[in-house]
Amino acid sequence: MTIQKIKATIVGVTGYAGLELLRLLYSHPFIDVAIITNTQPDGHDISEQFPHFSGMYNLSPEAFDALHIMQKTDIVFFATSSGISKDLAEPFILANFPVIDLSGDFRLTADDYQKWYHKTPAEPALLAKSQYSLADFYDNETTSYIANPGCYATATLLALAPLAQHHLLDQNSIVIDAKSGLSGAGKSLTTASHFVNVSDNFTMYKPNSHQHIPEITQQLHIWQPDIAHIQFTTSLLPINRGIFVSAYVKLKEPRTPQQLQELFENTYADKTFVRVMPSNELPNIKQVVGTNFADIGLTYNPETQFLTIVSVIDNMIKGAAGQAIQNANHFFGFTESIGLNLIAQYA
Amino acid sequence: MTIQKIKATIVGVTGYAGLELLRLLYSHPFIDVAIITNTQPDGHDISEQFPHFSGMYNLSPEAFDALHIMQKTDIVFFATSSGISKDLAEPFILANFPVIDLSGDFRLTADDYQKWYHKTPAEPALLAKSQYSLADFYDNETTSYIANPGCYATATLLALAPLAQHHLLDQNSIVIDAKSGLSGAGKSLTTASHFVNVSDNFTMYKPNSHQHIPEITQQLHIWQPDIAHIQFTTSLLPINRGIFVSAYVKLKEPRTPQQLQELFENTYADKTFVRVMPSNELPNIKQVVGTNFADIGLTYNPETQFLTIVSVIDNMIKGAAGQAIQNANHFFGFTESIGLNLIAQYA
Amino acid sequence: MTIQKIKATIVGVTGYAGLELLRLLYSHPFIDVAIITNTQPDGHDISEQFPHFSGMYNLSPEAFDALHIMQKTDIVFFATSSGISKDLAEPFILANFPVIDLSGDFRLTADDYQKWYHKTPAEPALLAKSQYSLADFYDNETTSYIANPGCYATATLLALAPLAQHHLLDQNSIVIDAKSGLSGAGKSLTTASHFVNVSDNFTMYKPNSHQHIPEITQQLHIWQPDIAHIQFTTSLLPINRGIFVSAYVKLKEPRTPQQLQELFENTYADKTFVRVMPSNELPNIKQVVGTNFADIGLTYNPETQFLTIVSVIDNMIKGAAGQAIQNANHFFGFTESIGLNLIAQYA
Amino acid sequence: MTIQKIKATIVGVTGYAGLELLRLLYSHPFIDVAIITNTQPDGHDISEQFPHFSGMYNLSPEAFDALHIMQKTDIVFFATSSGISKDLAEPFILANFPVIDLSGDFRLTADDYQKWYHKTPAEPALLAKSQYSLADFYDNETTSYIANPGCYATATLLALAPLAQHHLLDQNSIVIDAKSGLSGAGKSLTTASHFVNVSDNFTMYKPNSHQHIPEITQQLHIWQPDIAHIQFTTSLLPINRGIFVSAYVKLKEPRTPQQLQELFENTYADKTFVRVMPSNELPNIKQVVGTNFADIGLTYNPETQFLTIVSVIDNMIKGAAGQAIQNANHFFGFTESIGLNLIAQYA
Repeated sequence: MTIQKIKATIVGVTGYAGLELLRLLYSHPFIDVAIITNTQPDGHDISEQFPHFSGMYNLSPEAFDALHIMQKTDIVFFATSSGISKDLAEPFILANFPVIDLSGDFRLTADDYQKWYHKTPAEPALLAKSQYSLADFYDNETTSYIANPGCYATATLLALAPLAQHHLLDQNSIVIDAKSGLSGAGKSLTTASHFVNVSDNFTMYKPNSHQHIPEITQQLHIWQPDIAHIQFTTSLLPINRGIFVSAYVKLKEPRTPQQLQELFENTYADKTFVRVMPSNELPNIKQVVGTNFADIGLTYNPETQFLTIVSVIDNMIKGAAGQAIQNANHFFGFTESIGLNLIAQYA
Repeated sequence: MTIQKIKATIVGVTGYAGLELLRLLYSHPFIDVAIITNTQPDGHDISEQFPHFSGMYNLSPEAFDALHIMQKTDIVFFATSSGISKDLAEPFILANFPVIDLSGDFRLTADDYQKWYHKTPAEPALLAKSQYSLADFYDNETTSYIANPGCYATATLLALAPLAQHHLLDQNSIVIDAKSGLSGAGKSLTTASHFVNVSDNFTMYKPNSHQHIPEITQQLHIWQPDIAHIQFTTSLLPINRGIFVSAYVKLKEPRTPQQLQELFENTYADKTFVRVMPSNELPNIKQVVGTNFADIGLTYNPETQFLTIVSVIDNMIKGAAGQAIQNANHFFGFTESIGLNLIAQYA
Repeated sequence: MTIQKIKATIVGVTGYAGLELLRLLYSHPFIDVAIITNTQPDGHDISEQFPHFSGMYNLSPEAFDALHIMQKTDIVFFATSSGISKDLAEPFILANFPVIDLSGDFRLTADDYQKWYHKTPAEPALLAKSQYSLADFYDNETTSYIANPGCYATATLLALAPLAQHHLLDQNSIVIDAKSGLSGAGKSLTTASHFVNVSDNFTMYKPNSHQHIPEITQQLHIWQPDIAHIQFTTSLLPINRGIFVSAYVKLKEPRTPQQLQELFENTYADKTFVRVMPSNELPNIKQVVGTNFADIGLTYNPETQFLTIVSVIDNMIKGAAGQAIQNANHFFGFTESIGLNLIAQYA
Repeated sequence: MTIQKIKATIVGVTGYAGLELLRLLYSHPFIDVAIITNTQPDGHDISEQFPHFSGMYNLSPEAFDALHIMQKTDIVFFATSSGISKDLAEPFILANFPVIDLSGDFRLTADDYQKWYHKTPAEPALLAKSQYSLADFYDNETTSYIANPGCYATATLLALAPLAQHHLLDQNSIVIDAKSGLSGAGKSLTTASHFVNVSDNFTMYKPNSHQHIPEITQQLHIWQPDIAHIQFTTSLLPINRGIFVSAYVKLKEPRTPQQLQELFENTYADKTFVRVMPSNELPNIKQVVGTNFADIGLTYNPETQFLTIVSVIDNMIKGAAGQAIQNANHFFGFTESIGLNLIAQYA
């Protein structure tokens, strides 16, 4: 019996996340990319603009056409910037057509979106249909509109989940110092992304104002209802890929390092893509770049009573395209690691 | 019917090439790694020393044991430094057991090896059994001891093959300016590999003396018998991976740019892993990092009569482990791209 | 009237700090380097081992000889690793000969040194003669043995000084996430400094255990006696130079952002080498690399009540050699900026 | 007697070259920057746009005003892109007012400029007044309009000068493989300068077409009249600063390595800013970054008969601002190293 492959559409294929989806889905045994779209399709094969794709695909970006997408494919990935999917989603939602949205447009309430993105949010009726899906904790059985979490949010939530789920976080002492490589900032040509300004440099660029803050707080609040805010800053690392989150937290109740280690190991024992380091060992970025893994390590300081948790991910994979595929695997009932069995290149 | 997978051994698994073989073979549908060896096995899983492998394999390096390897596996990859396989190869050669040797020990004549490596070469009788296999040109049908070419040699030979095969190179004007990332230099802790000496720097380190010179000349000579020497220098790029070869050559007979473009396209039309850029477009390193591709571009200067050829590869893949797997695919009669269908990460 | 220049000795000239002193003092109008020493002097000019010094000096490292140093020069800089100056300092202390010690050997009490450096400390009688000199706050009028602060310690103390001096820090909420380039780790060839392990990577390497913790706490305690500990981690940035400290603190008493900005500006109004950024602007590393400046910026989050302070320095200059020269300028009564009027290269 | 300092104007101060002039002249004992201009002066101090200049200067960019410049200052530096100084130079030339032009507008004949820059050249009568001043070979005694050479041109000409001056170059075998860091490409926000496209990458971007080719050929021709063309390519290194030129040449007459070494040493014996490496030693980029030095090394291959010459400079200093100051020092009769006594930072 021939397995009918799932056909996928990627909207906004020429951004980093879209290209990463295209790259990763190439090796997915059950999902084929059938349609790719961007805002100014020129009829040329994707490899003309991106020579590294030469010989791999036979696809040219098309104009966005919701009906065509629903007729010809089985799932659509929105790899668009914020402010776009909110205006394109409706047909899919009405038709219950599966969507994995990598943008922020369906992650928050209308009020939070307006406040943090400074844009008109999606219609509340549509927002109500979406599910914020941190893939390691949600199985997507009952939703067809999946809001893929942001990269910083993913790394941060995975660092804090075991503690939040057990109501252990001291709301007054949650300090997150998050750092990312440049691909997280997108391809826009800005002073901030000019090589000379980034190379050999390190910059804190959105203290207390990054758009991932509300989704982190929202999810933490679901796990631990007394959490209303987090101290969260973002900085730019002079590298292409990777997110390194240093979380400094205090606990409501004392726990020994041993207990904390076990808490993390138990929470993640059955999570394919979250690896907890041995006691007091901390992960570095290159362990996960090129993979869908989040690696987590902890170390407790009894003198200051701060628990330091380090969480690392590849911002384009676990933080975007990989998590999207993981969410798609859930939706279709595939083994969640299908197409994501990747080992870090490291050297 | 169940396909019996090929079982492979990796000798010297903890070097960069060995780890890269282990990483790439993870996704090979027909080859499984069954035995890994290093010089000081401590009984611990490979992921203890290399956390990025956590959860992927269940293998601990063993001590080298030729008989055990031949009994339990179907092929052995030597991912060792020079001077090692020459002393370990004999049992395999005598038994006609397939070997893919990533080191330089079986690439040259005894005299050349002695002269360039300053070490005692392998026994001539053993050397006679090996085949220097530039994978894009050799199918390994009649050999079981495959000498995998060096990284610089691979990039350089692919840049010059079309011209050499048509006897077009002017022996007196072959200038190769080759540059590589640090992984090509191995993991030894030397001043030359200390981050502070490499970062933001560029150094020419082996002008006229790199050990790949004799194998390049040897292979060019096979194609074009009047070639006896090349002007070849190697420099270090402050990056992890990638080789960029700038070849400047003059031709024995005039050819138009159009003819040269066609010559390259024809030579590589049926070579899965060599992509020729459109006319006058030149490749950059990131187009191929993470893949088994060699990308080549050319541009001719009618005023100086020099043809510039740029050839880029990932030194760890096309320049080592990927080419080794490609050679293994040939040996076993698999489609040569099996397990090597990789798209560059790029961003 | 001819000004007699001060003659200086640099002990341990071949380490990064020693070379940086040699480089900076080249342009000092009143201090000349007359003697340089290292552990294995070979009689060759310093430029033989360090070609970038060619044509600048005419000096060969000599063996260490305290008497010779005191006879021929006017001040000695110890640019040695920890554990060395403690055994070499005595003659200078007994003779009241001015010493600027860039190592940690005279920064702490004997107990703290033993506990954090795991080495036998200097004799208490000698330790009593040294002054821990954060140059922006100490004028060295009454001491001749100056313990130059560590690089991380300098950046951190400058970030916190205004608050600590006004007893505003909440002891239970001082979180320091400090990051440094590789030159801070020294020239030893270790796995941690191998280019391939550092490039494109980010690693937290000494959570809660860096040897600068006790000197930071010691100095904070002097300013604000209820401070006994800090939550302090150190991470490696894949760059050559620069320290970026992100300090997250809560205050004992509420202060408006305006008041905090003024507090910092007032504290540093007359400090040549500390520049406070305009309100809510944060500095980046390249603003100070190549200079003796510390740039500081703050931003307050009223929701979490955390004040974020960013402090950046060049670890080799403000964090070592530059601060040492600044301390020397104080000692000799020179304008403190003499020889340190440097503008960041940036691009 | 008080020395009256020379007052300088920098036109186009906000580009990299302009900022570098501003930075270097800060320490020049005899030249003060009195006027700085850019295209859109906003009345704010230069440190507002460039915080790393905070506390150093007290200057705001003004609008360009030739008369005002000539009245208030003694020399003007054009740190402008091509196509600008050609329209602004006339008043200065008519008044014999000293100009150091860092752009290409006055380096070539009108025809060459038109051909290579695709812009209308300066008036021939004005062009006739300029002197192309490779500072190590020209003393500027008889000219007041100095055309500062381009960065690649400087590194290349210094590599070839000893041979060209002795008519030793074989016109048919001059191959230059030149590589530069990003600051050479300027601050424009282009895809080519986006961090993600540059980091970990290497790209040949202007084979046979870089605008420095005509000025290199022009100067070589002056030294050795049979030189009409060179094989010259340029590539981008993923670093901020530095140029590394690999020159591969054949000679008209045989010379031993010893003779060649002496030829270079003799040519440069009295050139303050050109350092020739010991026999067969080659320089690397970091030896010269931050300085006005050009370091040169050679190695001869008797088999191929190619002489390899490596020449390294800091593209912003020796390749632009530093050479401009060196040329100004000549013009005013100062010791040429005044204000340029710089040692490489290296680590």
